[in-house]
Parts: sequence; structure tokens; C-alpha cells
Amino acid sequence: MMAEIICVGTELLLGQIVNTNAQYLSQRLASLGIDLYFQTTVGDNLNRLKSAIDIALKRSDILIFTGGLGPTSDDITKEAVCEYFGKKLILNQEVLNKIEEYFKHRGVKMPEINKKQAYVPKDSIILENRHGTAPGLIIEKDGKIAILLPGPPFEMQPMFEEYVVPYLEKFSKEKIYSRVLKFIGIGESSIEERLSELIHNQSDPSLALYAKPFEVELRISTKKSNGALAKDILDQMESKIRALLGEYIYGIDNQTLEEVVVEMLLQKGLKVSVAESCTGGLICNKITNVPGASNVFDRGFITYSNEAKVKELGVSEETLKNFGAVSHEVAKQMAQGALKNSLADIAISTTGIAGPTGATKTKPVGLVYIGVATKNYIDSFEFRFSGDRLRIKETASKAALDILRKTIINY
Amino acid sequence: MMAEIICVGTELLLGQIVNTNAQYLSQRLASLGIDLYFQTTVGDNLNRLKSAIDIALKRSDILIFTGGLGPTSDDITKEAVCEYFGKKLILNQEVLNKIEEYFKHRGVKMPEINKKQAYVPKDSIILENRHGTAPGLIIEKDGKIAILLPGPPFEMQPMFEEYVVPYLEKFSKEKIYSRVLKFIGIGESSIEERLSELIHNQSDPSLALYAKPFEVELRISTKKSNGALAKDILDQMESKIRALLGEYIYGIDNQTLEEVVVEMLLQKGLKVSVAESCTGGLICNKITNVPGASNVFDRGFITYSNEAKVKELGVSEETLKNFGAVSHEVAKQMAQGALKNSLADIAISTTGIAGPTGATKTKPVGLVYIGVATKNYIDSFEFRFSGDRLRIKETASKAALDILRKTIINY
Repeated sequence: MMAEIICVGTELLLGQIVNTNAQYLSQRLASLGIDLYFQTTVGDNLNRLKSAIDIALKRSDILIFTGGLGPTSDDITKEAVCEYFGKKLILNQEVLNKIEEYFKHRGVKMPEINKKQAYVPKDSIILENRHGTAPGLIIEKDGKIAILLPGPPFEMQPMFEEYVVPYLEKFSKEKIYSRVLKFIGIGESSIEERLSELIHNQSDPSLALYAKPFEVELRISTKKSNGALAKDILDQMESKIRALLGEYIYGIDNQTLEEVVVEMLLQKGLKVSVAESCTGGLICNKITNVPGASNVFDRGFITYSNEAKVKELGVSEETLKNFGAVSHEVAKQMAQGALKNSLADIAISTTGIAGPTGATKTKPVGLVYIGVATKNYIDSFEFRFSGDRLRIKETASKAALDILRKTIINY
Repeated sequence: MMAEIICVGTELLLGQIVNTNAQYLSQRLASLGIDLYFQTTVGDNLNRLKSAIDIALKRSDILIFTGGLGPTSDDITKEAVCEYFGKKLILNQEVLNKIEEYFKHRGVKMPEINKKQAYVPKDSIILENRHGTAPGLIIEKDGKIAILLPGPPFEMQPMFEEYVVPYLEKFSKEKIYSRVLKFIGIGESSIEERLSELIHNQSDPSLALYAKPFEVELRISTKKSNGALAKDILDQMESKIRALLGEYIYGIDNQTLEEVVVEMLLQKGLKVSVAESCTGGLICNKITNVPGASNVFDRGFITYSNEAKVKELGVSEETLKNFGAVSHEVAKQMAQGALKNSLADIAISTTGIAGPTGATKTKPVGLVYIGVATKNYIDSFEFRFSGDRLRIKETASKAALDILRKTIINY
């Protein structure tokens, strides 16, 4: 079975958004072992969309559409596909109820035009949209398949994973199984050097490195007919790599640094509090992105002004005057204060210059101090990060979470 | 003249990279006033690329290719286009010298395979590559035009700006000028209903709606021969829309809600403090993403535990017991506490259930209360958001920033 992706939306032809849907779907099709030879993008125009469908059906078996399922008059994907497949659109009461519920849940009455989204073709598979109003659809006819998905990634991706993946799995014998090892505290080139034999002397499993801000991912991939077979291969390679670089690996696959840290805190029954200056709430935000964070995250102090550092964390005005807010001393006092003024077992702190302004001769943009305190340990670390304000906040927050991770290990 | 973009590269079909070239070229073509109706992505395969060229030439006049100009054997864009246009590839000594210089400059001898890149078709326009070895090409035949550009954006973009823009400008008298109005607190369908006449009863300027999480963008576009003319049209349409929905418009073009809020605080000389429970630091993080936030953001209290709400914000244990942490009453007391315990003029607060756990019969996931306090005003608002934990945090933080925005307006 050959698949083709057709992305519908004039905003794509105007370059108003980058087509992340095409990348996401391509990645997932590859991992499902389904061949993809063409991606097409077309605007919200019935005739041009129909011509794209015509071309695609001549060279592909599975057409995956994204976009054009909205309630407005220029959303025409469903109409075009049904016209082409000769299917009538019929009002589906169940779908209509779901859409009305969606609005009711928001305390809003459903606008009349949304009723359009409750019309679905006869004998089609309806894919529930848990994050929006447009249901997805799978339409089969004469051995060809059309899969219609909404455009917004936060609606499309969960729908694809929940309904489309199980549907597509039956079409391919071999899948690509892969596992990602996540490194922190070591650079891409050092990893490449240390693993060069493993990387270059084999084709399956294959190893590929990807550098991310302040971390590196290593993807191990193997093509196998079943998961058990693949698991052995991946396990063997993972242990080979861990034997060489295990200390730098904080997690696997989609685990985030904050998820790993929250899990470690849960297992040791520890609580953390956070005092942030230059990261401005990003560390608290990352930790509280993890479900269940409330069991390990006590509170955070976003002390942007010096007055706040003094009042909320008991940083001494003397220290601020002598060393400045961006210093080892203040980072330590912030961490101590966050520990003392909370119910936490570990506290971390950040103070630095995120830029673009605020730099001095001796303190450049990117200079960041990260403090850590427990009841019997206190320390601080100096970093010099590069990039713009957001990048410095991001790397500083990751560095702080990694220091927290190591502190938990040794707690 | 109608253009079509053809991106060549198997890495795009495998989803290993996101297709930013398609967005970049689409944006530039739109602003140049050249119509683009299709984008096609195809892998490094001669026959499939030739079939894509065949289809494109039937519906478009200008074909813009990116990728497949490298030195390796699977780089076949130049070969495919020349085969299709019946053009012979001839070694160009000048180009070869440039490529050899490129390597010499790096102290490396030119690998033999790079010689392939010095072969160009007769009577084609050669576009110098200042950032790599593959020259770009413009090939004209029988009123059709093929423009071949390298795949790496840092090579493609400067080449496009320096050579292709001047070449394309002669094909359109008019350019497209556009302005984006950013709405919050009103849904896409409601805007469509309220503006239906404006949207449907005209073609220039055109109006297009795009829904984003908790906000909607409306793009006004007009095709004009010069910017002054366009500005009048855009201004007129903007004021028509503001007359109908002005209260919901928070900014234009690339402005973010937090940038607008920080700017408004600066202009009125006000400071804000934030008390976050369910948003867990996201609001503070957004505000501190804005350069210069330190002038208007005093501090934030991330009070996840009830004990923190009591100690840091003076929320009464009585109130927590009687109404629960997720309530109008607690939201108000959090905002009052954040105002009292800071140097701020306005304080906002959030308390809610971000999920996936924590819901009760009467308090579902997505229930969020947002409080606001100034020295002579205090209020709170109830919201019921849907989606997963991250989406609920995101929408709640935007709702809070919008309440802050309205509070500043009325301050």
C-alpha cells in the first residue's frame, strides 16, 4: 500500500504557517513501514483540491488529508473527497451531540455554522475529536482509502495515534522500531567520538545523533517483523551504549528531563521548591507540566526584583550590594531561602542575565548562576550560555533541572 | 504567471526535517504577488521527480525546485529537469573554478564528486552560491521557467533574495500587502458570523480567519502596486472591523499577548505580580519572555500546595476548607495576597484543575478560576477549558493575560 499526504489550506500556500503536519505524518508512516512517495499541498479551492485528489488516486492507495474540516464556508476537504468518491453527506446526530456538548462544556451555545461539521458520508469510519469540533473520517471505496484529519496539530496528532495508527498497522509486514536515548552534560561530537565504532560499523540497528539545546538525542532504529524481535536488538545496543556513556543518559524516548526529575522525587519521597530570577518561572512551569507534580513540587518564588529576593527569600541586601544579584553568593542565598521558606527537601535557584539588556563589563548576557540547597548541602554553579533571551532561559532551566537530578541521585 | 514549488528530498518524505523551504518560498512569492496553487514534495527518485515535473508543467508556468543539487549520485534534480527540458549538461569552467576556490578557501582539495556540480545546461542563468558549492539555475523554455535552488536554507535564502527576487519581480505589477488582527475572548465562528458581510462581499482586500488556542487571527490582504496605496486599504478595512469587534482585538501582526500587556504596563507605569496554582509558572514565564519585563513584573508566587497559598498569599484555611482550593473565593484571596505581599499595582491569580487527576463530581478537569486585584477592585472569573494538561495551562494563562489586559485598560 502506498500512501500520499495532501495538506489543505491556503495559509500553507501563503507561507503563513510551516507544515509540521506533513513532517509528523511522514515520520509516523515511516515508522509504520508504509511507503510515502509524494506530499501535496493545495489551497482551500474545490477544483484544485479535486484535481490533487485525481492525481493522487492514480499513484497512491491511501490518501491522508489534513485541514479543511472546519465550520467555515472555505473548509471543503470533506465535500471534495465525498464528491470524488460519490458519497452523500448525511447529518449524524451522535456527532452533532458531541459538538453541542463541546460548546456546552464551555458554557457557549453552538454557532449554527458548526452544524456543518456533523455531516458525514454514509458507511464511513468516524474518528472522534477529543480536542476540537471536527471529527476525522476514514472513507473506503474500490480498494482506495481516504483518511481525513483536522488541521490543528493538537487535534490531528492524538486522533492519528488513537484511531489511524491501529487502522494502518494491518497494511505493513515490517515496522521500524526505534528507541531514543537522551543525553545531558555531554556534547554531540564527544558522543560521536566515544561511539564511533558502534555508529559506523553497522547498518541494523542504525544509530543517529540529534543535538538539542543543552542535550543530545541518540536514536537506535531497527526494521523487524515484530516488537519482541526488535526489543532484543534495541536492548542489546542500549546496554552497549550505557556501558560506555551511561552516566550521561537521563532518559529514553519521549521522557523529558522534568518527567524524570518528578519521577525520581516521587520514588525518594522528596519535595522541591524553586527560586527563579532570570528563568522567570520556566523551571516551575516545566515541573508543573508533569502530571502528579503536585506530590513533589511545593512552591516557587519568582523573585525578579531585588526587593523580592530580600523579602521572599531572605537574600541579604549586603550581599546584593557587594556581589550583585547575578553572583554565586546570591544564587546560594536564594536556594537557602527557598528551602527555609517552604516544605521542600531540595531547593534550586537561578540568577543571571537573559538579555538583550542588563549586561555589564564583567557580567555578559548569558552569565547564569544556579544554586542548590538541601538541609546539609549547599552549592552554586556558573554557566555562560549563548543565544537570545528565550534560548538562555531554556538552557538555564535545563541546566538547573540537571543539577536537581544529580542532587536527587546523591540525596 | 502561476508558480509551483517542488521540494526534492527523501529526508522530507521520512519526516526527518520540517519543510521550512516551502514556507519561506511561499511567503516570498505571496509578497511578490505571484500566484502559488500547489506545493509538491518528492524523494530523490528520477522517475517520480519527472512525473512531478510533468504534472507541474501542465498547471503552472514557473517551477521552483529546492534540493537535489548536491554532489552525490542521489542528487538528481538538475538531471531530471534537463532531461525533461531536453537540455544537455556541459562542464562550466567558471563554475568549476568557484567550487575549487570554495574548497581551497577551507584548505581542502575539492573531492572529485563535486565536479558534478559544475555541469550546467546551455543558455541557462547561473545563480552563484555564496554559502555552498551547488550553483542555482534558471532554465527557460517555451514560456515555461524552471528555477533550481539548493536545499540548505542558509544557501537557498540568500540566493533567492539576491538573484531570484529581481528575476521574478518583472512577472507581477502588484504585490500582496497584509496585516493580521489578533482577537481574544471571541471564537472563530462568532467572528465569521459578525463579519460575514465583510468576508463574503468582496475579494480585495480579502479576509481570512485562523483559529489558535484561545485566540483567533484575521488576516487582511490586498494586492497593490505600492505600499502607500495598500496602507490606505488596510487601514480602512481595519477600522471597519474595529468598529464591529474592536474590544476583542489585542494586537496586530506578530505581537504576542504578553508583549502587548508588558507594553501597556510600561506606558501606564504599572507593575504586576502573579499568583499561580494550576498554571504553575506559565504566566510568569510568558511575561518574563518579553525583553524589559523586569520594569513591570515585580514577582510571582507559584503556590501549588494549600500550605503555600496560606503562607505566601494569606489565603484563609477557613476558605480553603469551605470552598476548596479551586473556587472564586480562593482565586480572589490569592490575587489580594499577591497584591498585598508585593510592590505591584495589579495582581492576577489562577487556581484550577489541569488534570489528568484531581477532578471531583462538582469540579471537572478544566475548571479554572482566575482572580484579579487592584487597590480598589477585586474580581474573579470561572472558565471551563478542554484538552490535556498542557493545553489547559496554556489557555488558562492566555485567559489570565487577557483579564490583566482589560484591567490595565480600565486602570
